[in-house]
Amino acid sequence: MEKERIEQLIQTGRDFMKFSKEQEECDFESDQMKHLPQPELCKEKVSDEIISLDKDFSKLKITKDFTSVLLDRKSDRVYTDEPISLLELSYLLFMCQGVKEIKGDHYATMRTVPSGGARHAFETYLIIRKVDGLKEGKYHYLPLTHELEYLGRIENMDQSIEDTLLGQNWAKKASVIFYFSFVPYRCEWRYGIHAHRPALIDAGHVGQNLYLSATALNLGGCALAAFDDDCCDKLFGLDGNEEFVVYAMPIGQIS
Amino acid sequence: MEKERIEQLIQTGRDFMKFSKEQEECDFESDQMKHLPQPELCKEKVSDEIISLDKDFSKLKITKDFTSVLLDRKSDRVYTDEPISLLELSYLLFMCQGVKEIKGDHYATMRTVPSGGARHAFETYLIIRKVDGLKEGKYHYLPLTHELEYLGRIENMDQSIEDTLLGQNWAKKASVIFYFSFVPYRCEWRYGIHAHRPALIDAGHVGQNLYLSATALNLGGCALAAFDDDCCDKLFGLDGNEEFVVYAMPIGQIS
Repeated sequence: MEKERIEQLIQTGRDFMKFSKEQEECDFESDQMKHLPQPELCKEKVSDEIISLDKDFSKLKITKDFTSVLLDRKSDRVYTDEPISLLELSYLLFMCQGVKEIKGDHYATMRTVPSGGARHAFETYLIIRKVDGLKEGKYHYLPLTHELEYLGRIENMDQSIEDTLLGQNWAKKASVIFYFSFVPYRCEWRYGIHAHRPALIDAGHVGQNLYLSATALNLGGCALAAFDDDCCDKLFGLDGNEEFVVYAMPIGQIS
Repeated sequence: MEKERIEQLIQTGRDFMKFSKEQEECDFESDQMKHLPQPELCKEKVSDEIISLDKDFSKLKITKDFTSVLLDRKSDRVYTDEPISLLELSYLLFMCQGVKEIKGDHYATMRTVPSGGARHAFETYLIIRKVDGLKEGKYHYLPLTHELEYLGRIENMDQSIEDTLLGQNWAKKASVIFYFSFVPYRCEWRYGIHAHRPALIDAGHVGQNLYLSATALNLGGCALAAFDDDCCDKLFGLDGNEEFVVYAMPIGQIS
């Protein structure tokens, strides 16, 4: 690549991170300002196989105190290939995307993570390898009811993990892999051209809670910003423009 | 703004969030691959007024358990205008940007938050209004030594808060306002044109730990993605391209 092209792309990247650069083009009305209908808070379920998730997390008997969890968090890429419990998975899901309250007439969800304008534009997909009580396969989280829906089996799971995560082999011993997709119009409806920068920050809010709650359960995880998003999108049936994967994290047992 | 222009900007925003779009232009060598010298892990101190920060956080007697902190976190915009203690400030700083370990020959810092390639490209600046034992003014955090440096007084603090935060008046009763800047070359040295998308995600990792540690201390905070970054940069003497503010959070006492 030409030096000039690299410099241009780097400057584009920097500018994207700046609110003031967005503001140079602020003369527009968002769809919310135009009173256009609001998109759904969450994607509807598409499967008949629904798994209820328990919310009695006191049964997990977490003994690590808050400060220890924050200090102990690190990126773990070596897993023992053992299963996690369904309640542990339920905890991880609730702590990173759980709905605590619905505001107004389905105007917004209040969750365990913050989100600009409470838009919460993420969906959570899972590859389940080893979770007690669940069969292997693809799943989707339903945050409004704290349920999972089963999306089907995966032909060659090892290969799928490797392909979606750009050959990162270590992830093949994870118990579960989280893939967070972004549904841009949920933010664009309110923020229009200003939707995307804050949404990436929000992905970090979600990921940090997943990291920490895994640490609290003595599980290991490792955030991935580099993965084959086209391959992830295809695996979960996302079109890659109205919804696409932006963040992935394998979680597994560590010794 | 023309409808076509809005659609173009929205598509640009969406594309920026996709790793595959970056990958279309992957034929380049980063400065690290070219064996160019690595940038500093953190900015050097510029002031003679250094404040050591205590790390004995057991004195804070945090009683909230981990799960309660995650469930209790919310965005608080109403503060009582009371001070926080210096140890509380020390805790907030360490939990969101504290250095736990230095790897290699100053190759990387391991911190309480994850960062792509352990680049940790953020600096932390503060407007201190009411922190016991500190005079009002501008400060900068020195993570390698867990110290603060005093950067000077602020002529008209109320006005500065209002100006930097686009007139969000409620922030004027915060005890302290965190401004996180991004130093792009720290990531670009390693990742080149791929540096910027993961860095925004990392800002969310940092912000979530700040939110949670404030909640653990029964303090309130509210993340801000919309602020006048030019004004923030000017306040802290940043050039707006090699370093610029990307995330802000007021923290205060709540009733």
